[in-house]
Amino acid sequence: MNAEFIAVGTEILLGDIANSHARFLSLEFAKLGIGVYFHTAVGDHLGRIVDQLKLALDRSQVIVITGGLGPTDDDLTRKAVADACRLSLAYDEEAFQALIVPYFERLGRSYLDVHKRQAERIGDAVFLPNSRGTAPGQYLEWEGRHLFLLPGPPLEMQGMYNDEVKPILERIAGSGSITSRVLHLFGIGESAAELKVLDLLRVQSNPTIAPLAGEGEMLFRITAKAETKEEALALIAPVEKEITDRLGHYIYGYDEDTLSLIVFRRLLEMGAKAGFAESCTGGLLSSMLVEIPGSSDVFAGSLVAYQNEVKVEQLGVSEAVIMNDGAVSEETAKQMAQGIRDRLKCDFGVSVTGIAGPTGGTAEKPVGLVYVAATDGKTTKVAKHVFSGSRTQVRVRAAKAALKQLLDLLNDTEVKI
Amino acid sequence: MNAEFIAVGTEILLGDIANSHARFLSLEFAKLGIGVYFHTAVGDHLGRIVDQLKLALDRSQVIVITGGLGPTDDDLTRKAVADACRLSLAYDEEAFQALIVPYFERLGRSYLDVHKRQAERIGDAVFLPNSRGTAPGQYLEWEGRHLFLLPGPPLEMQGMYNDEVKPILERIAGSGSITSRVLHLFGIGESAAELKVLDLLRVQSNPTIAPLAGEGEMLFRITAKAETKEEALALIAPVEKEITDRLGHYIYGYDEDTLSLIVFRRLLEMGAKAGFAESCTGGLLSSMLVEIPGSSDVFAGSLVAYQNEVKVEQLGVSEAVIMNDGAVSEETAKQMAQGIRDRLKCDFGVSVTGIAGPTGGTAEKPVGLVYVAATDGKTTKVAKHVFSGSRTQVRVRAAKAALKQLLDLLNDTEVKI
Repeated sequence: MNAEFIAVGTEILLGDIANSHARFLSLEFAKLGIGVYFHTAVGDHLGRIVDQLKLALDRSQVIVITGGLGPTDDDLTRKAVADACRLSLAYDEEAFQALIVPYFERLGRSYLDVHKRQAERIGDAVFLPNSRGTAPGQYLEWEGRHLFLLPGPPLEMQGMYNDEVKPILERIAGSGSITSRVLHLFGIGESAAELKVLDLLRVQSNPTIAPLAGEGEMLFRITAKAETKEEALALIAPVEKEITDRLGHYIYGYDEDTLSLIVFRRLLEMGAKAGFAESCTGGLLSSMLVEIPGSSDVFAGSLVAYQNEVKVEQLGVSEAVIMNDGAVSEETAKQMAQGIRDRLKCDFGVSVTGIAGPTGGTAEKPVGLVYVAATDGKTTKVAKHVFSGSRTQVRVRAAKAALKQLLDLLNDTEVKI
Repeated sequence: MNAEFIAVGTEILLGDIANSHARFLSLEFAKLGIGVYFHTAVGDHLGRIVDQLKLALDRSQVIVITGGLGPTDDDLTRKAVADACRLSLAYDEEAFQALIVPYFERLGRSYLDVHKRQAERIGDAVFLPNSRGTAPGQYLEWEGRHLFLLPGPPLEMQGMYNDEVKPILERIAGSGSITSRVLHLFGIGESAAELKVLDLLRVQSNPTIAPLAGEGEMLFRITAKAETKEEALALIAPVEKEITDRLGHYIYGYDEDTLSLIVFRRLLEMGAKAGFAESCTGGLLSSMLVEIPGSSDVFAGSLVAYQNEVKVEQLGVSEAVIMNDGAVSEETAKQMAQGIRDRLKCDFGVSVTGIAGPTGGTAEKPVGLVYVAATDGKTTKVAKHVFSGSRTQVRVRAAKAALKQLLDLLNDTEVKI
């Protein structure tokens, strides 16, 4: 079975937004073992969308078309699919009441007449509910093809994919399994990690090993094909073991893990709470943890201490230390971590202080210099990093390094709590 | 003149990397006034690349194909173009010596025999030098079409575009200017905003008006074509005035503006500093301001007060208010804003408290309910919002609403500082 994706939207062709759907869907289809042969982006132009759909219907079994499901005149996808498949497009009052009206009721807003267009059904398509927006999707089986119409906003599209599309695809993709195992590494660059396993990368075909660089971290994806998931996992196991033997020190998680998710789970297991004192990351570290639903159980709060006087007055950092060692120093990082722990009366205090750039660096303290510290009240561990990249990259890498610093401390102090 | 882009590489179809070329080239082509009708990504498969090229040669005057110019068996783009155009592919020793050998010499490395493939010329194509890698590009005029073959690594592609392709395109695209003006709106949905200017959207062709939805905000891009930039701006001005007459209340900025950038500039002009008290946004609000280089001049710091006891102990929110009104309430938001201003001794205090979800909502206080407050010590303004969307969306929208609340206060209190 092969598939292709069509993203509709003139804003993509103008470069205003990236076509992020193609990558999301490709990663998902790879997990299901469905080959993807083409990504296309096309503008809000009926004729060109219809032409592209005809081409796709001719060469692909599964077609996902994203965008153009809104209520305005520019939203042409429903009409284009109906035209390409020579099917009717008919307003469905029942679907409108069931799928669209409740969304407006929940927000306490009124729908407009134009929103009824979103309940126009193509032939005998099945509507796909959208809990995150007004546009329902549609799923159509037509002459042996499977067509999915999904909304353009990424979170709506991804949510609908997970809730509605994936179960249908799992059914139609049938037997055979492509299974992946992802190893997440922190503290080693992509090239250095690849060199350690170059011999494995060269000879493997099933499973394959793909190294991928992330922001301040990297991962290996090991992918195997077999009749069953169990057989695929059995092919993966020895390769995973070999990589772990060589690089285990850097591996912090697996599959869907992120640093913040692992920190969250560890704190939850321990029944402990952490508080953060952030300087150059400016709230980013906190935000990474708060992103996780339920984080209030493990997160005491944080202070973004961007100014020196805030570090002194609110966190109890010694003025002498800031004067002598500077705000970006090992001792300041230590005192910030200890200060936030005391101030918020939590189990663990974590701090980050650094120079995010683009200006503010010196020969001695360059842009990218970052200290992170974590304390449990007895032990305080500090690490020094020098990150490369833009202001944003330095901040992201610094926030991740702070999470890793906390994680290392959590792993050490487990029994004490 | 119209154009399309083809990105070659199975790694794009697997989702391992995003097709970043399409967006880069689209933004560049928009500046030149060349319409882009399609983006396509296709795998390393000769037949499918040839088919895609034939389709593109049939419908587009300018075709840029990226990737697949390396020295390995997987690099099929040269062969595919030669096949699609029925042209020869011949090794050019002179080009090899002039374009490829010096690159290896500069790195102090030796070339391999396979690198000679990169000097295979399609028909009478012109080689495009690559100062950043081993793969030269090629430019081919064929039956009224302009074909550009560019290397896959983004920095090589972008460098070659700027150095080699852009001058050729400027020549063939001829004179004329495409100029855009962007109006940024906050506090109104895309559909509602469109309805206010539906008559304008329907009749405009030069300039065109494109509404675009952002996360919690939206924008209108007005784009005009004319001989000179001045003439294009003269076409834009009356349309901008008409939209401003109808929607001016919601317009907060222009072109590259963002809410945080405008807040930053206003605070800088006033020589004032702001501090934030964040609950559900969990550091995101602070992070949006800290993202701007130089933000330390206007940002005092912030407290992420995720727990009620932190709100009470660190911000001085009344326990009775939290007990009676709740942590997500108008009065709590007010006291948080006042508390952070007092605590950090800054000019403006801003707060946000809400229910980000996915759980924690009630009938009375649903997921998405958010209060934002801003105070200058005399006046404290609070706004209530109910945002839809995922946890991330609610948090992003809440952070932007807090910036807008501050901006409104800054605009009101300008003279007082």
